[in-house]
Amino acid sequence: MSLIVHKYGGSSVADADKITGVARRIGKAKDSGQEVVAVASAMGDTTDELIELAHTVSSEPDPRELDLLLSTGELVSCTLLTMALRSLGYDAITLSGFQAGIHTDDMYGQARIFSIDPARVESELSEGKVVIVAGFQGITDDMDITTLGRGGSDTTAVALAAALRADRCDIYTDVDGIYTADPRIVPNARKLSEIDYEEMLELASYGAKMHPRSIELGAVNDVPIYVASSFGDQPGTLIHRVEKVKELENRVKATGVAYQANVAKITVRSLPDRPGIAAALFEPLAAMGINVDTIVQNTSAERTTDISFTVTRAELPEAFEQVRVLLADLGGTEVVSDNTLASVHVVGSGMQNTPGYASRMFRILADGNINIDMITTSEIRISCIINEDQVSEAVRLLHEGFQLGEEG
Amino acid sequence: MSLIVHKYGGSSVADADKITGVARRIGKAKDSGQEVVAVASAMGDTTDELIELAHTVSSEPDPRELDLLLSTGELVSCTLLTMALRSLGYDAITLSGFQAGIHTDDMYGQARIFSIDPARVESELSEGKVVIVAGFQGITDDMDITTLGRGGSDTTAVALAAALRADRCDIYTDVDGIYTADPRIVPNARKLSEIDYEEMLELASYGAKMHPRSIELGAVNDVPIYVASSFGDQPGTLIHRVEKVKELENRVKATGVAYQANVAKITVRSLPDRPGIAAALFEPLAAMGINVDTIVQNTSAERTTDISFTVTRAELPEAFEQVRVLLADLGGTEVVSDNTLASVHVVGSGMQNTPGYASRMFRILADGNINIDMITTSEIRISCIINEDQVSEAVRLLHEGFQLGEEG
Repeated sequence: MSLIVHKYGGSSVADADKITGVARRIGKAKDSGQEVVAVASAMGDTTDELIELAHTVSSEPDPRELDLLLSTGELVSCTLLTMALRSLGYDAITLSGFQAGIHTDDMYGQARIFSIDPARVESELSEGKVVIVAGFQGITDDMDITTLGRGGSDTTAVALAAALRADRCDIYTDVDGIYTADPRIVPNARKLSEIDYEEMLELASYGAKMHPRSIELGAVNDVPIYVASSFGDQPGTLIHRVEKVKELENRVKATGVAYQANVAKITVRSLPDRPGIAAALFEPLAAMGINVDTIVQNTSAERTTDISFTVTRAELPEAFEQVRVLLADLGGTEVVSDNTLASVHVVGSGMQNTPGYASRMFRILADGNINIDMITTSEIRISCIINEDQVSEAVRLLHEGFQLGEEG
Repeated sequence: MSLIVHKYGGSSVADADKITGVARRIGKAKDSGQEVVAVASAMGDTTDELIELAHTVSSEPDPRELDLLLSTGELVSCTLLTMALRSLGYDAITLSGFQAGIHTDDMYGQARIFSIDPARVESELSEGKVVIVAGFQGITDDMDITTLGRGGSDTTAVALAAALRADRCDIYTDVDGIYTADPRIVPNARKLSEIDYEEMLELASYGAKMHPRSIELGAVNDVPIYVASSFGDQPGTLIHRVEKVKELENRVKATGVAYQANVAKITVRSLPDRPGIAAALFEPLAAMGINVDTIVQNTSAERTTDISFTVTRAELPEAFEQVRVLLADLGGTEVVSDNTLASVHVVGSGMQNTPGYASRMFRILADGNINIDMITTSEIRISCIINEDQVSEAVRLLHEGFQLGEEG
């Protein structure tokens, strides 16, 4: 008998009808002979509503208290889902994060799972029950309730699948799979039937509706992750270790195009070109929790260097102010920023080892009269920072230029 | 330093403003040098709303799941209360039922506390924190969440006070104390400054806005319980062991008049007068969870007996049907019911040992032209079942006749 961990997002359990729909889907899986553990998020916008409620009594809610408050959202959706399953005739039980043995550190609001004791889940499964687990939450060694932050329920599901040695983790959501590009921008974007963890990580980091955290966890623990719609029966996308043979066949093609809006760039000019200068710049930013994405450094003939890096637009003011304060110590002459940028990314296995990929990307953008501001590459991705006004056009052109809309 | 356990009901924490008001009250107690543990109920009608929500997905929600669902109500109100306290500058922490060490049996929906491990509460108190404890909930030995049923939050508070050897348990609610009679019916009803557990138990059983369960627990553990309004600063009523000397002085007076509407009576006629007949009648009713209150049995000359008993009007149809089914086996001739009744109760210590109390009650009712249907007495209470149309008049007449409106 195969054991599958399902995960249902907030929009999939937004009201009683949808919850009953999810219960039917789980029941069908059970009827087909699967053992099912299902992780659910809080109903619809519950989490945001609870955060708002907290702000009615406190301008800066205590993180531990906020986590205990937010953890109630998943208890509500999960107990309702279990009740719906039971009223359809399936034996089921809800386990809160701590009941499911999900142990985390005590970084409230963004706790990391450090271990799962699956004994209770396994014992309930052995009694033939469907086990509904409250996503997004865990418990510390001191018995305090934590939440896992962004992507938390996906992370719960994949981590549980790993701990239970499940055959697969099915992520049911409001998108029906992973596409070669955002279908709202590229109408003939193609749904991928499968994708490697590494490529998915790159896509997830830049726009695809999944948090990289759960993909990483899946990759490390070799958990196949199936992404599909919770509202229909169309086939979705399987994220797993794509075999090398296949990779070789596919390497003539990119896998997908991703993008990210709201990119801001900070450039520090004429820094002395000496060891430690990058560390001196980025350590204070990291300490502030600012997420620096692309970093580009060029050394000029005068033994000075310009460093440019991107942050989200929301973090620009804070980051800019910090760099301005550091400027004199760093020995730079000037700091400037640009908050009108976006990024486009072509992702595919073995890209860097295949000549011509990058130049093809640059040619496509040039032919579209799109100027490239910064370039970075990884083993399986080429990224360009461009003007945000041109990002949709760039995605369309790259999708077409790399022939992603056609069957390979 | 004195340790006081506060308890705030749902109407006291119904919205953000009220929660902040409660936080201020707790802060004031803290400022005055008290150590405070506060138990809160769910906000306003939250519990009823969650029950309704459960019924949108299941006609008969599983009791274990329902308890897990309902337990979220107190987590919400308590974390908000803690946040409000912290934003007023008081260090505070919320503990859920299981974090506060409240262990119960597994009778979902009506669990009984069997032990409290106060270690965590004590450790938080020793750090100078106000400890907010989610009322109405506990955890079983199997780590399943239970709720305590009616009067649950009061019970949590009194049980915690006992386990912590607190100096007092303050029940803050929407009434400002215990009165000699319902002030809505008797305008000159007098607020009692103190009352003995036993008398309070009788009043609580018949109308006063407290569940007998927590009074019982207070009596057994000798926890003084102070009942006062959460919205003002008027003195309330202290429920404690009133000393014997005082009791002697007071025994010339009754303590209060209580009443209960919605009383229904079932009478089984001409039962054979033999051992075991009452057990055969009431055991099946108990097994159905029907709460039988007053029972009166008379034996006639023909060696047959009539048994009458009261139930709440809501339980009448079920109880009546059960008795109808039993009738032939019991050997009775007829079963009849009356669902237009109410009860009035005069409560006072040492009543039964003081001649003239009962006859005085009957005289007062007779002078008011109020017919008595059934009579029962306990050591500290005389109860009459009367027609519901006359219950307000009876309460007024008894309150006046026993001179309860004047200062003693």
